Amino acid sequence: MELRIGVIGCGAIGQDHALRIHRKLSGARIVALNDINLAATHAFNDTSRLDAKVYENYQDLINASDVDALLLASWGPAHADQLLACIAAGKPVFCEKPMTTSAESGLRVVEAEVQAGKKLVQVGFMRRFDAGYRALKKTLNAGTIGDALMVHCAHRNPSVPEMYVGDMCITDTFVHEIDVLRWLLDDDYVSAQVVEGRKSRNAHAGLHDPVMVLLETSKGIRIDTEIFVSCRFGYDIQCQVVGEIGAAFLPEPASVALRLEGRASTAIQTDWKQRFIDAYDVELQEWIDATQRGQVNGPTAWDGYFASATAEACVEARHSKAIVPIRLAERPAFYSK
Amino acid sequence: MELRIGVIGCGAIGQDHALRIHRKLSGARIVALNDINLAATHAFNDTSRLDAKVYENYQDLINASDVDALLLASWGPAHADQLLACIAAGKPVFCEKPMTTSAESGLRVVEAEVQAGKKLVQVGFMRRFDAGYRALKKTLNAGTIGDALMVHCAHRNPSVPEMYVGDMCITDTFVHEIDVLRWLLDDDYVSAQVVEGRKSRNAHAGLHDPVMVLLETSKGIRIDTEIFVSCRFGYDIQCQVVGEIGAAFLPEPASVALRLEGRASTAIQTDWKQRFIDAYDVELQEWIDATQRGQVNGPTAWDGYFASATAEACVEARHSKAIVPIRLAERPAFYSK
Amino acid sequence: MELRIGVIGCGAIGQDHALRIHRKLSGARIVALNDINLAATHAFNDTSRLDAKVYENYQDLINASDVDALLLASWGPAHADQLLACIAAGKPVFCEKPMTTSAESGLRVVEAEVQAGKKLVQVGFMRRFDAGYRALKKTLNAGTIGDALMVHCAHRNPSVPEMYVGDMCITDTFVHEIDVLRWLLDDDYVSAQVVEGRKSRNAHAGLHDPVMVLLETSKGIRIDTEIFVSCRFGYDIQCQVVGEIGAAFLPEPASVALRLEGRASTAIQTDWKQRFIDAYDVELQEWIDATQRGQVNGPTAWDGYFASATAEACVEARHSKAIVPIRLAERPAFYSK
Amino acid sequence: MELRIGVIGCGAIGQDHALRIHRKLSGARIVALNDINLAATHAFNDTSRLDAKVYENYQDLINASDVDALLLASWGPAHADQLLACIAAGKPVFCEKPMTTSAESGLRVVEAEVQAGKKLVQVGFMRRFDAGYRALKKTLNAGTIGDALMVHCAHRNPSVPEMYVGDMCITDTFVHEIDVLRWLLDDDYVSAQVVEGRKSRNAHAGLHDPVMVLLETSKGIRIDTEIFVSCRFGYDIQCQVVGEIGAAFLPEPASVALRLEGRASTAIQTDWKQRFIDAYDVELQEWIDATQRGQVNGPTAWDGYFASATAEACVEARHSKAIVPIRLAERPAFYSK
Ligand SMILES: [Mg+2]
Ligand SMILES: [Mg+2]
Ligand SMILES: [Mg+2]
Ligand SMILES: [Mg+2]
Repeated sequence: MELRIGVIGCGAIGQDHALRIHRKLSGARIVALNDINLAATHAFNDTSRLDAKVYENYQDLINASDVDALLLASWGPAHADQLLACIAAGKPVFCEKPMTTSAESGLRVVEAEVQAGKKLVQVGFMRRFDAGYRALKKTLNAGTIGDALMVHCAHRNPSVPEMYVGDMCITDTFVHEIDVLRWLLDDDYVSAQVVEGRKSRNAHAGLHDPVMVLLETSKGIRIDTEIFVSCRFGYDIQCQVVGEIGAAFLPEPASVALRLEGRASTAIQTDWKQRFIDAYDVELQEWIDATQRGQVNGPTAWDGYFASATAEACVEARHSKAIVPIRLAERPAFYSK
Repeated sequence: MELRIGVIGCGAIGQDHALRIHRKLSGARIVALNDINLAATHAFNDTSRLDAKVYENYQDLINASDVDALLLASWGPAHADQLLACIAAGKPVFCEKPMTTSAESGLRVVEAEVQAGKKLVQVGFMRRFDAGYRALKKTLNAGTIGDALMVHCAHRNPSVPEMYVGDMCITDTFVHEIDVLRWLLDDDYVSAQVVEGRKSRNAHAGLHDPVMVLLETSKGIRIDTEIFVSCRFGYDIQCQVVGEIGAAFLPEPASVALRLEGRASTAIQTDWKQRFIDAYDVELQEWIDATQRGQVNGPTAWDGYFASATAEACVEARHSKAIVPIRLAERPAFYSK
Repeated sequence: MELRIGVIGCGAIGQDHALRIHRKLSGARIVALNDINLAATHAFNDTSRLDAKVYENYQDLINASDVDALLLASWGPAHADQLLACIAAGKPVFCEKPMTTSAESGLRVVEAEVQAGKKLVQVGFMRRFDAGYRALKKTLNAGTIGDALMVHCAHRNPSVPEMYVGDMCITDTFVHEIDVLRWLLDDDYVSAQVVEGRKSRNAHAGLHDPVMVLLETSKGIRIDTEIFVSCRFGYDIQCQVVGEIGAAFLPEPASVALRLEGRASTAIQTDWKQRFIDAYDVELQEWIDATQRGQVNGPTAWDGYFASATAEACVEARHSKAIVPIRLAERPAFYSK
Repeated sequence: MELRIGVIGCGAIGQDHALRIHRKLSGARIVALNDINLAATHAFNDTSRLDAKVYENYQDLINASDVDALLLASWGPAHADQLLACIAAGKPVFCEKPMTTSAESGLRVVEAEVQAGKKLVQVGFMRRFDAGYRALKKTLNAGTIGDALMVHCAHRNPSVPEMYVGDMCITDTFVHEIDVLRWLLDDDYVSAQVVEGRKSRNAHAGLHDPVMVLLETSKGIRIDTEIFVSCRFGYDIQCQVVGEIGAAFLPEPASVALRLEGRASTAIQTDWKQRFIDAYDVELQEWIDATQRGQVNGPTAWDGYFASATAEACVEARHSKAIVPIRLAERPAFYSK
């Protein structure tokens, strides 16, 4: 049976996901759409030939009897209420990151899910589905480099728009490392520190760029991440895990090597949309497949809450310049594997 | 409307393709199966839940009214007759390589297709659909390295079974380079030479390994390819195009880099099935899509014939140790773009 | 005229330097030797055919009329008095690192030199003479990557002896980065922090390994250095400078690349003595040449003092786990370029 | 005792060698100079402060009682007579490549040396002294990749002057591979073939560029070398040896890696003089040291003759487009190790 999906939030990412399911993935179809911009949603439904039903409010969509599962791509502040409605309806939901805009509201989603007695929420951290990160995790799990001791990362963008300011280096950018490294290392964070580097003259007015975030895990692993969003040279995601007997690196994307003008070179991607484009496909296909089996095997509501709480500690650390402990609610046994 | 596909030849590769279409690709479904081993075909149909109809002979399958298109994965010697039957039925057919086992029979397929007045045959040279070769072709077409002048290739396998002997280094192995380089360079071959290297002690009794094949194209481009099928260290496909102002290399597959035991390393694949696994998906999905539009945009019958004729010249060159001209029938205008 | 050199301290490094000057470099010869172990010094003089005069005390050697310049390779605690004697004698002296074992005694050397009114002391930080670091500095100075903003380093040894404990990760190991990065960036340090990573099970009892040191420069550049002296896989020196428009990396030593057993690899050196062996030659040859011209153009007494003061701050930071400001005496104008 | 050297031929390379010995190497000094341009030779002697004696004819220089050994950097056609004079005088001689301009005259040098009963001649093939080729040879000798089966090389220059025409791709360029590969593989050549690639539009009028040379060795090893002297992108020397279980590559020169403008890159040298500059130092220092011991341990007169005979076969092959056997005089036992 095909999974019948309703999409809430039909902006750029919502449309991408809807078309991905419609044209490329198997086992599901889009049957319902909702967005605050109704006219645009009708237009999208028509031009894409989804032949879905357009709902004026998300509650009706969530409760529609022919909708089996939800895909949330609305803006962040709307997520908490929408997730609670999905949970109340007992329906599986894929929610784009961030799950919620605060740790506090994230914890309410966690509590509702625990109350409901069934995992329903998956959060859209796509890097867990990237072939490179998976290969790196496989290498770690195989013991090839021994136990992980340190992790050196970089998250670099060529540039960011003027609206990208203040703490967005944490909440929009570093949040991806927060989730994927916790999964990669199978470990939790205990403290955060943020160090501001020498500011680039290319960083726009409202932004201190680059910065470095230092995380410590419960096992004592030290993670440092350079966040540099006006680096100019590429969208460059680096992750080096140093273990007891060796070091392992996130694969560089394959590219045509050149010998040209006195340099031997390979490509660094410049468009972040291309870097993890395959991961989005895998993420949604696996979500469809797991949902069909009544499971959640991607990032859970707890993972979404953990990411929010860690991001909040990093933001505090950026402002205070102190080492900030990361304190969380107790982890419900419900989320144990 | 979904394309209804009949599969002729349900051995390993036929089953792989059938399952690929059934489980992973979109726009088509398997409705009919045929193989000389009827019992195994019924078993496959059951265990894979294809719910297809199993035919006792391929002619009935080809002519079945609910079969829109054919997929040939039978053994090579059967291809020519089966292709002619498909053409006679006016039905599109995807034929695994080699299209035919001789240039002469390949030419009969070409002539039948020209007679029928419509391109129906696509040959299963999957490398044209590999992201790496496509990126390399894009680089060449962009003029990044100027016009191509020389091409250095290697086709290496860790080992081959005892049944792999004699000319199979050409007909089974080099045939992939024959097709993909002609497509890559948008050029035809005019002569072939084969040079036998010092024989490896790891090459089994019936095999001279390694060998080098030299091809010349109509534009004067020189191609050298090392074929080394007992190289032990990996399934290693190399392609370096040297142009007027630079050189471009087929991308190395992405892999976790390691620093371990005094070496910094990346992986070389060892299983040929993994090396082009994504290309098979792309190849069949694009075939389905093009077939839906009434087109063939992969390797044509002419390409299949050209590959056979080139392989025959290479085999002659291997035995004669002479430089052998590659002579073909005149190219029908039908195959011009 | 050949520079006539007296060597004080004829252990391993002193003998290496003496033989280097005797057999490989040009423009100087060894005329005098001194060491607390007189018998071994006589033996070395004989077997190496240096034909030098062996002195029972270093004062006589320093003041000998046929000794033009001194090379100090005695143990660290002896350096301060010996340097003061050289300065008093008005003779140029090459002093192995560390210049002195405390910032306080380093400052006394600085003050004596300023008093003497002439630069006489060069400190043996050989990395400034390494072709790789020089190429990196040239790249930075050319503006290729814009202004430096962050620097990511690693200093890894396969293992260290049992006697290597406590703060030696700073005083013996990191001290090389302290000097060379200051030179590379043409900048001074203002604060230090030390973060202890998860301890490797391969680290011996008296050692917390790995650690990370964070330095901030007066321009705001952030430097992080992983120090991991039981890393097992190699003697691995990494230095990545991130600038406003690009990143530049210390060259990896050239090595034979291999394709073997499923891996494509290059070598990581395992013996630290080999890593900078060419730099020692350049260091001493340039010292000889500059001394002949009456100049010092390597690391000065001020640089030696700065390294000691920075190392002391790092040691304090390691123990206190706080961010420690680096405070120095005012730089005498004497050391301005 | 210092080796007293007379230099015959004081053009660019002769001056380079003289200054190298004078300023950088140890154990020898330049005592005599000769060149057809006497005025320039006197000027060179003065400006370089060699304080050597300038001879009007090379015979007198060779026979001067205070000249222990000769360095020939005259033009090629003069070498044969000068070498015979050195041999007649019983003096060791370092002769720049080519040893002679024909195999026939090379054989006369060989015969004279055999007659004299003592090896005196070393030919200036500097690649045997390059750290990279030596590391590659060490890898082969260690058995790391098993026995060598094939060798793939490239010899690329960004451009060549207008005077570089015709067979110079063999006699000036490929001659380096001829010598170094024979040494690397410890094997002799038995046949040669030359294949002309598609001509680059950047190749000047008198030159077919690129070409590929194919050599076969007595052990059956196949060597292919792309010679491309208007490749524009760099002075790029490649050598890949394919063995029974792996492949080994000539090290790429170390360089600063960059991440810049969407590319990760390392440098390709563009100036051939820089590529082997260290090898020249090692070559002459080892020649001085061996000469002091009364030995020749670099390329011998036999090696010089072999290179000439091979080059002549390659030239014939380039013109005839046939596979040309390489025939030599019988190797005198005198040259056995
Ligand atoms: Mg996502
Ligand atoms: Mg195929
Ligand atoms: Mg030193
Ligand atoms: Mg030479």
